Amino acid sequence: MGLIVQKFGGSSVATAEKIHRAASRAIAAKNAGNRVCVVVSAMGDTTDDLIQLANDVCRFGRAESSTPPKREMDQLLATGEQVTIALMAMAIHAQGQEAISFTGGQIGLVTDNSFTKARIQSINQQRIFEQLAAGKIVIIAGFQGVTPEGDYTTLGRGGSNATLVAIGAVLGADVCENYTDVDGIYTADPRIVKNARKIDRISYDEMLELSGMGAAVLQTRAVEFAKKYNVPIHVRNSQNDHPGTWIVAETPNMEHIVVSGAALKRELIRVLMKSVPDQPGIAAKIFGEIAAANIVVDDIIQNVSDDNTANISFTVEHGDMQDIKPVVERLMKELGGKSSAIYQDGLAKVSAVGVGMRVHTGVAQRMFKALADGKINIQNITTSEIKISCIIAKSDAERALQIVHDAFDLGNAK
Amino acid sequence: MGLIVQKFGGSSVATAEKIHRAASRAIAAKNAGNRVCVVVSAMGDTTDDLIQLANDVCRFGRAESSTPPKREMDQLLATGEQVTIALMAMAIHAQGQEAISFTGGQIGLVTDNSFTKARIQSINQQRIFEQLAAGKIVIIAGFQGVTPEGDYTTLGRGGSNATLVAIGAVLGADVCENYTDVDGIYTADPRIVKNARKIDRISYDEMLELSGMGAAVLQTRAVEFAKKYNVPIHVRNSQNDHPGTWIVAETPNMEHIVVSGAALKRELIRVLMKSVPDQPGIAAKIFGEIAAANIVVDDIIQNVSDDNTANISFTVEHGDMQDIKPVVERLMKELGGKSSAIYQDGLAKVSAVGVGMRVHTGVAQRMFKALADGKINIQNITTSEIKISCIIAKSDAERALQIVHDAFDLGNAK
Repeated sequence: MGLIVQKFGGSSVATAEKIHRAASRAIAAKNAGNRVCVVVSAMGDTTDDLIQLANDVCRFGRAESSTPPKREMDQLLATGEQVTIALMAMAIHAQGQEAISFTGGQIGLVTDNSFTKARIQSINQQRIFEQLAAGKIVIIAGFQGVTPEGDYTTLGRGGSNATLVAIGAVLGADVCENYTDVDGIYTADPRIVKNARKIDRISYDEMLELSGMGAAVLQTRAVEFAKKYNVPIHVRNSQNDHPGTWIVAETPNMEHIVVSGAALKRELIRVLMKSVPDQPGIAAKIFGEIAAANIVVDDIIQNVSDDNTANISFTVEHGDMQDIKPVVERLMKELGGKSSAIYQDGLAKVSAVGVGMRVHTGVAQRMFKALADGKINIQNITTSEIKISCIIAKSDAERALQIVHDAFDLGNAK
Repeated sequence: MGLIVQKFGGSSVATAEKIHRAASRAIAAKNAGNRVCVVVSAMGDTTDDLIQLANDVCRFGRAESSTPPKREMDQLLATGEQVTIALMAMAIHAQGQEAISFTGGQIGLVTDNSFTKARIQSINQQRIFEQLAAGKIVIIAGFQGVTPEGDYTTLGRGGSNATLVAIGAVLGADVCENYTDVDGIYTADPRIVKNARKIDRISYDEMLELSGMGAAVLQTRAVEFAKKYNVPIHVRNSQNDHPGTWIVAETPNMEHIVVSGAALKRELIRVLMKSVPDQPGIAAKIFGEIAAANIVVDDIIQNVSDDNTANISFTVEHGDMQDIKPVVERLMKELGGKSSAIYQDGLAKVSAVGVGMRVHTGVAQRMFKALADGKINIQNITTSEIKISCIIAKSDAERALQIVHDAFDLGNAK
């Protein structure tokens, strides 16, 4: 008897009909002899609607909107998933099977207290195993947890996937099925690249680089967790029964494929901190404080000038602008009166990813040449063992993705 | 420095604007030098909308609707108040004051596990006092609690008022301010009786009889709790600053008024259990099992017939029909094959209430005569020390209320 954890995203539970369709899948897995857990997101646009409601309240009757306290934001947002788990349990009950729903707090899903971006610290699997043993389908609210004090937290964008994999890991699940509205992971975003192709199997590391690059469906944290605990993820379409994409541990024959996918990150901002003192420990201080604010930075460049100062630049996502600005301004003030910061908008990043890069040469050159032939200016390059990324103008973004995709012939099955 | 607990019902927090108006009241009470707690209900029709959503899911694609599991219903409904507390905290924050919101679970508001009709067992006031001491306005979700296992429960209709008074009691509040959309408690429902008059002060016992009779605004449980812990309740209109009705311990001069108010309970059902064995302990068994199902019965009549059997009748509210039927049917089966039950619809009950009845005579007679003059047939009579009730046809209900109201001249200030 297997143990399956299924996850249904917001669009897969947007209506009573869709909730019943998801319920039927869970029941089918149960009837096939498995123990079944289901992780769900908030219905449809619920989370966005709640954020809108919060903004309405914070803006009401005022020239300038106040920022909602993050603790209260999470108190608010956590309701979205709680509605879905109750309805999913009712739908399964209506279809004649027993189910029980749990909020994050009810299964002791404890996080740190970084409200709106919390990290999972522990899950108490006892209550889940008890209910599975009693023959019930266990429904769990994605995206949410509680602090040790019992305050609601949320796990940030894509947090339901983090819940999926964490639950899969603590239960020792045979597979985490991630139901979405696409057929799987593609060689590039199919909304941009028309000849993008569904990938059958991909390694955790490749998926990590792709999701870090802003490829939809699965976020870095979820994949990191899956890799750490070796939990296979099967990304599938909730609207059909096609096999999707399996995300699994790397196998030797994966290296036959040089590049597995191309990804795009739009809406980047480059932060340039000019004339900071060129002393040991400055970079550590800067990026330590930025990390403490839970902001992910990338593409760091440091240039030393001749007056014992350095220019440090890095990119952040546009959505982090509001959070990073006060941190940078405070750092600049602390580092001395001469310093100032510049924020450059309108950037994007295109990447090629593949474990085959480890054993194949000439990959970078092929990518740079293709972009040059397309008259796309490369502003900065970063590489890892299995990834090459180029910072480009946002206006070139979609064309660059198509160019890289075609340069490695990703549209044709290998 | 006083301690005030304010409660805002669903209609007083239905929009961002109304939430801000309630927030302003809490801030005004704080600025006047008080420590302030705020209990809130779900916004507007949220609870009804959630029930509708549950019904949609339970009915979906089926000829007959399934009944949603009550535990899941409470998991669903508890989200309504959680949304409001977060928004209320944001509104207070936006107005420049500090606030923190708590769900029932977050302040250890523990109930029994009678889902949808739970009773409060204990509240941990420590976290509330800590936050009040830190200068914050504390926002608490009404209507909800958790079982010792951490499952959400709801407190039944009017449960937010139970929360208000329970919080007031454990904190030793100086007053519980209950904000509604009416100016206070009236001598009769002003939607039916046009010359109904606002009452300035009323005793707990009178309010108990009135609320038990279906008078709006405050439910029996809340008033019982307030009486037990001697917490004064001030029922006020959230739309204006008029003094409302104070519900307080009885004082000797209250007895000058013979009848304080008249009340109506519509939508009653009389359950007649025919030919049950006339043995000692039968009634105790029947009403014990009904009470165990958390159903309130009233107007019990037992008639012994000549064949060693008895007819037992009682009334329940129409809304309890679904719950009481299986209990009665099971009891009838257990009590012997001869027995059968009859359910009579279309009943109502009109009552006159006043602590003055204790010292004044002739009250019952005056009420019966007025109803007789109005050609209203009395089907059953029950009395307490401070109340006289008559069961009548539902079709006579509103006219009967007006007649009783006029018979005691309640429309004119005493």
